[in-house]
Amino acid sequence: MRPPAIIERYRSEINAELESVIDGHELPLYNMMKYHLGWTDEKGNPAQKDGGKALRPALCLFSCEASGGDYRDALPAAAAVELVHNFSLIHDDVQDDDRERRHRPTVWVVWGKPQAINAGTAMRILANNAVERLLQLGVSLRKLFHINRRLDEMSLRLIEGQYLDISFEDRYDITVNDYIDMIEHKTGALIEGSMELGAYLGTNSRLTVLAFKKIGMNIGLAFQIRDDILGIWGNETETGKPSGNDIRRRKKSFPFVYTLENCSGIQRKELLAIYQQARPSGEGVEKALEIFEAAGVKNRARQMIEEYCADSNESFNKLDVNEQSRRDMEEVLRFLNDRSY
Amino acid sequence: MRPPAIIERYRSEINAELESVIDGHELPLYNMMKYHLGWTDEKGNPAQKDGGKALRPALCLFSCEASGGDYRDALPAAAAVELVHNFSLIHDDVQDDDRERRHRPTVWVVWGKPQAINAGTAMRILANNAVERLLQLGVSLRKLFHINRRLDEMSLRLIEGQYLDISFEDRYDITVNDYIDMIEHKTGALIEGSMELGAYLGTNSRLTVLAFKKIGMNIGLAFQIRDDILGIWGNETETGKPSGNDIRRRKKSFPFVYTLENCSGIQRKELLAIYQQARPSGEGVEKALEIFEAAGVKNRARQMIEEYCADSNESFNKLDVNEQSRRDMEEVLRFLNDRSY
Repeated sequence: MRPPAIIERYRSEINAELESVIDGHELPLYNMMKYHLGWTDEKGNPAQKDGGKALRPALCLFSCEASGGDYRDALPAAAAVELVHNFSLIHDDVQDDDRERRHRPTVWVVWGKPQAINAGTAMRILANNAVERLLQLGVSLRKLFHINRRLDEMSLRLIEGQYLDISFEDRYDITVNDYIDMIEHKTGALIEGSMELGAYLGTNSRLTVLAFKKIGMNIGLAFQIRDDILGIWGNETETGKPSGNDIRRRKKSFPFVYTLENCSGIQRKELLAIYQQARPSGEGVEKALEIFEAAGVKNRARQMIEEYCADSNESFNKLDVNEQSRRDMEEVLRFLNDRSY
Repeated sequence: MRPPAIIERYRSEINAELESVIDGHELPLYNMMKYHLGWTDEKGNPAQKDGGKALRPALCLFSCEASGGDYRDALPAAAAVELVHNFSLIHDDVQDDDRERRHRPTVWVVWGKPQAINAGTAMRILANNAVERLLQLGVSLRKLFHINRRLDEMSLRLIEGQYLDISFEDRYDITVNDYIDMIEHKTGALIEGSMELGAYLGTNSRLTVLAFKKIGMNIGLAFQIRDDILGIWGNETETGKPSGNDIRRRKKSFPFVYTLENCSGIQRKELLAIYQQARPSGEGVEKALEIFEAAGVKNRARQMIEEYCADSNESFNKLDVNEQSRRDMEEVLRFLNDRSY
């Protein structure tokens, strides 16, 4: 399926904004960031690789535009949320020992874990540098202060989510509620903040900003649940990760958590046995897939995503937006339901 | 030797300020920080362990007071620099695979490296929360903005220093100049910033602020060189690290770098052979110590520290400070020369 138009529409300007933040720095430390973002190869030569969907900055700019602003006024904030997101990916790959992202070796595989930790943390600091450019665009210090505070809050929530996600690794009593709480932190908070900050820079209406904030959280949750489905049934060429991957990694993602709460005692025992192996066998993966299917995970995931999308739509429909923004929003919601990468 | 009075004088208020920043957060993630700071044991029970010298916040408050301010006005900034310092220690232990700090297991030994990475990064974000309280103390948004920007700059410089330090591991061509550049980043920038921000909150005189900034950099460099000496000749009960430790870890610290530049060809070859082993033997450590002694490392270190202290003193003497601040400064400089921990 085609990605929503907003992803392509803003991409070159988002990249230019990101480049302006990173380019002022000289050390090879910053080459690691450029590599991660798909701009260079491992040696630092220019490349045009997949740098990810850049969904969060696109949603930030979209929210600015849809709430009545000029999206260019939100470019520094869009760059900031993308830097926060990518800092967390660089650390996440270190933490999860993941060797590949976007069909390329992860940063730590190339430069080692100690340096990848440095690159990730430095990238989080650069997010603060990014929003500073708002002052040049005429944003008041008071507004900038608010944006900085929100960036910190969403970063902290994201790290807390990462903390929760990792703490789930040794636990077999995670409920769907625990899971939702975890993804509200890990994924919801930053997408929520991306849309909130976009609207904050596009309108003075507090109600509109709050509406985009709510939409962002719903989109975030729908996005993560779909991500978890793709982590198990996704196609490797599209997602960049082998199918069944999250079973082999024994991730306590939605399919596992939901199934554990909704299957028979025998299946529960079988599933737990598979997830308690150091590395589930091919047979174990097959068996887990069977149990997930029987529990109706895919249907339930689709239902939940539809509910989150319906909530988003309801909030959105109360707003006074133009035709293009309405179409953009429809595309985003369709993407959340149907994306295969 | 007795630590300088400023270390004890401000300690309880610095701790109270740090507690006020961390206490509002509930997740076990924050217990990792409390453990690291010496306030709790591994289970979260209250404890009173060594949380480090807290030199940076003490220098921050001292600079505020010495420049004519009320040190309490700088408490939020002092907490912030201490959080930046400790974030870097938590990550540093992960990166260097160090299992002990301040006579206790490091955070990653207790909670694992993935969670230690989270605790460190979250602590860096809390530094931003800490300085926000300045608004309640009547600091203007413009000043707060400047302080935030400086916190980001010094954090970035610190991470760059960490990057350089790690990149030295595979290199045997590091000069004393390279080394100084690295410690200006890794250690100098944050101590420089601690004193600069303290003065910034204590006086409106730009020249005074710049003087404290310069003093801070000199103190930082002297501090790090002394640290490197203690990393090799320090006494384990005092430093918390076994003597000769930095040789076994093959750190490219001052003694190694200086000696390599200032010894005979034969000694150079011997030293390189020792440092190119995976883990130098007891015999290798003894031999390296011998070569360091022959090169006069300790003398040269003492000379350099004295020069940095003299520079600090010269800047300080131009300022109009009261008798107590003068004594405080003398104690700090004596400490830099003679500290054994």
